[in-house]
Amino acid sequence: MTLTRLNPTARYADATVFNGLVHAVEVPAEESGDITAQTISLLGLLEQTLEKAGSGRERLLMATIYLVDMADYDGMNAVWEAWLPAGAAPSRACVQVARLAKPGWRVEMAVTAAQR
Amino acid sequence: MTLTRLNPTARYADATVFNGLVHAVEVPAEESGDITAQTISLLGLLEQTLEKAGSGRERLLMATIYLVDMADYDGMNAVWEAWLPAGAAPSRACVQVARLAKPGWRVEMAVTAAQR
Amino acid sequence: MTLTRLNPTARYADATVFNGLVHAVEVPAEESGDITAQTISLLGLLEQTLEKAGSGRERLLMATIYLVDMADYDGMNAVWEAWLPAGAAPSRACVQVARLAKPGWRVEMAVTAAQR
Repeated sequence: MTLTRLNPTARYADATVFNGLVHAVEVPAEESGDITAQTISLLGLLEQTLEKAGSGRERLLMATIYLVDMADYDGMNAVWEAWLPAGAAPSRACVQVARLAKPGWRVEMAVTAAQR
Repeated sequence: MTLTRLNPTARYADATVFNGLVHAVEVPAEESGDITAQTISLLGLLEQTLEKAGSGRERLLMATIYLVDMADYDGMNAVWEAWLPAGAAPSRACVQVARLAKPGWRVEMAVTAAQR
Repeated sequence: MTLTRLNPTARYADATVFNGLVHAVEVPAEESGDITAQTISLLGLLEQTLEKAGSGRERLLMATIYLVDMADYDGMNAVWEAWLPAGAAPSRACVQVARLAKPGWRVEMAVTAAQR
């Protein structure tokens, strides 16, 4: 079956598509900004990627949310809940890790979604 | 293709089902208790969710296990191995994170399973 | 639909296969060695598992890379990028966790791949 990659570099692709399943990972565009700004940035980028992959924010199956400080939990959730369409929340894990690849990043999300 | 969600809130669903695949995340019912009690609680809840999703503990494909203290590794494994049917272990990652959403939680599991 | 497991123990399987999807997790063969040696070891083992599962390194959909020290990021990436076929990078998350199951392990990878 066909495997499609969006913008593959030598290290990673923005998303992969196989058999109706989309895998994507997103980080904020900037290392600056508080958790609100970073989550808004991340979800905006993620939405663009999901749309290009034939999916959308109403088609999320699973999200893994990595925070670097659980004190950001409420701020992240406020943006997350406002962004999700009603009734469309995925299965979700949220953990605090030691750090992310760039020191300024406060959040990273990995998602599995269904194509429309 | 149809995407089904179990008990979606504004933040997350207990599970999602798409194309024969189930995604679910579970935590213990209580923040109190040692790793044995918390793992028993978690797997009991997970089993209920898997059954409602048309799957079961013998149909796990992948499990990601987040601990907050690797000293809990043996205790978690003892419950895990007793719970899994013979020959039905999934692919599995187990890592120690900095913390989980609630300070008393010692374990969180994210799983992908196949419907029956 | 058929669910196949590769080398299931009481705790985990090397890989699972369901509906064209492969889930696998790999760690280095040894706890000794720097990040270069450990990543080479891990990817060599992963490739064997993927091939047995009817997949391969050119069919990765998603990779989650757990490091114990983000100072290993460049070393891991160098091996990773040399190992991946051109144009075949998956969606990828990379986080620093507090520790892995064995104290000497510097890297663990969980992947989802497509069968050929």
